Amino acid sequence: MAAYALSLNSETTAIVRSDYDQVSKHGFSIDLVDYGTIESFKPQHVAKSIEDAAQLGKYDYIVVTTKNIPDVAKVEELIEPLVSAESTIVLVQNGIDIGAPFVEKYPKNVVLSGVSMISSTNYGGKITHVGHDELMVGVFHNPALEVKPQEMAAKTFVDLYKNDKNDCVFDENVKFTRWRKLVYNATLNTVCTLTGVDVGRLELFGGMDLVRKAMREVLSVAKSDGVDLPEDIMEFMIRSDDGNYYEPSMLVDIRKGNYIELEVILGNAVRIAERNGVDAPTLALVYDLLKVVQNRTKETKGALEVPKERPVPGK
Amino acid sequence: MAAYALSLNSETTAIVRSDYDQVSKHGFSIDLVDYGTIESFKPQHVAKSIEDAAQLGKYDYIVVTTKNIPDVAKVEELIEPLVSAESTIVLVQNGIDIGAPFVEKYPKNVVLSGVSMISSTNYGGKITHVGHDELMVGVFHNPALEVKPQEMAAKTFVDLYKNDKNDCVFDENVKFTRWRKLVYNATLNTVCTLTGVDVGRLELFGGMDLVRKAMREVLSVAKSDGVDLPEDIMEFMIRSDDGNYYEPSMLVDIRKGNYIELEVILGNAVRIAERNGVDAPTLALVYDLLKVVQNRTKETKGALEVPKERPVPGK
Repeated sequence: MAAYALSLNSETTAIVRSDYDQVSKHGFSIDLVDYGTIESFKPQHVAKSIEDAAQLGKYDYIVVTTKNIPDVAKVEELIEPLVSAESTIVLVQNGIDIGAPFVEKYPKNVVLSGVSMISSTNYGGKITHVGHDELMVGVFHNPALEVKPQEMAAKTFVDLYKNDKNDCVFDENVKFTRWRKLVYNATLNTVCTLTGVDVGRLELFGGMDLVRKAMREVLSVAKSDGVDLPEDIMEFMIRSDDGNYYEPSMLVDIRKGNYIELEVILGNAVRIAERNGVDAPTLALVYDLLKVVQNRTKETKGALEVPKERPVPGK
Repeated sequence: MAAYALSLNSETTAIVRSDYDQVSKHGFSIDLVDYGTIESFKPQHVAKSIEDAAQLGKYDYIVVTTKNIPDVAKVEELIEPLVSAESTIVLVQNGIDIGAPFVEKYPKNVVLSGVSMISSTNYGGKITHVGHDELMVGVFHNPALEVKPQEMAAKTFVDLYKNDKNDCVFDENVKFTRWRKLVYNATLNTVCTLTGVDVGRLELFGGMDLVRKAMREVLSVAKSDGVDLPEDIMEFMIRSDDGNYYEPSMLVDIRKGNYIELEVILGNAVRIAERNGVDAPTLALVYDLLKVVQNRTKETKGALEVPKERPVPGK
């Protein structure tokens, strides 16, 4: 969906890995909300790998919309072949504190923070799009760079992304927006994943009290990070899927046998809490439990080997 | 296994529900540890329901060895047709504080507490028995009855149960023994269930720190209930399955799609903590999460109906 929006206003290369054959031949099909039905869409260029895309030239903006799973693959390392002195890096990804490794690795490049509200799913090149595309774009402030050019890069990106069908705005306080989204993602998303139920069932099955406890902790951690979220955001998030037995993204991932975005959504929040001396026992325990679940997935995918004989520590 | 041991010394009726056809025709087969291979064992009587067993006469001892899931079926109500003035009720079941509803419902009957260490599994009438049968028997003290006859009933039961192959002893402090077993069951058993891994993987995947935190809480709750467990019981339990990727009982239940013994193992411990003002946040959260999981199983089994449209509370 980002490639579509960007290609309307600029020369865009989409890196399409698992669906490359489908998309390079037939394009994406997109259904429906903002743009109606689009039978076949191809951006100006389609590459099947980061290395191939790097061969095509230099990029003003490198837009990252992948799942963010640093315990499996670090995006800041993956994109290295694409980054030049002129590149602005745009992270349209979940989580909190996700800009830090980019600012550290690319101290001279601007790093932008995109918080996306869009319900779209890719089924092998066929995009089902059921929610209006809203993108808030701001800056992961790099203290080594001046503020103005960073903000200018964000505003230019907004101009490239926005059109009369979507909503894309420059967000001066995108950190607030990230923490706000985390109120949902660090709690409802994680607890649904751990208990194996959607948000509607979680409520029917008596899980909302512990979710509220976790949300209250997110508010405290955000405050310690300089972000004052209003109390009523909690009930707003709890009611945000009303009417639907909504499966949040992490539950969808785990049901598909995929990795979950644990470290950027919950791990980073817990680490900020520890750093700032904030008590967040519910978040910490849910995090510890889901780390075990993530390792289970790593074993299934062959990324973590379990010895044939159970080892005894210290022996 | 209990029916086998008891039938050697007394007239025993086994109530066999799902395996009635197999067992009433061919008996149980038992393999292996204490008794070697037994091709076909039938106790003196086999009944297919509690009601049928009640028709056969009166019982001195009513021995309950079922899973204990009071949120689905209350055992004290199920056994009612069997209970007469002379009956002693023996609960060879998991959990803490499980005698209370029996003492309340049958205030004139002696209620015994059996803590079993036996690794045996019933596969449709074929019993696989891999661990030595050790049974500790004591009294759920009923303050309305004198101590002596309660203890006498326990000792008589021990004499009926024990033989030269098993170990069955009278346990003056069976409450200690129950709490001791709970150090394992309320923590390793529940956390493995929630994360979907066996004890060996839980350790490899980094889950033991939170288990230790939970165990420490069990020790505090036990203390508030008058039971002083030694500190080193924690490491003893953590190491008790060493060498095996052992799947604890609750994990086996959930993997089979069955109910878990949540209320008697963890729910009662959390309620005792609340009653006694003991802080047990880890146990409380794991309990709240597993309640959602139990309700998920209830939905799957048709015992809990989820409305077609997700209801909005207060509307």
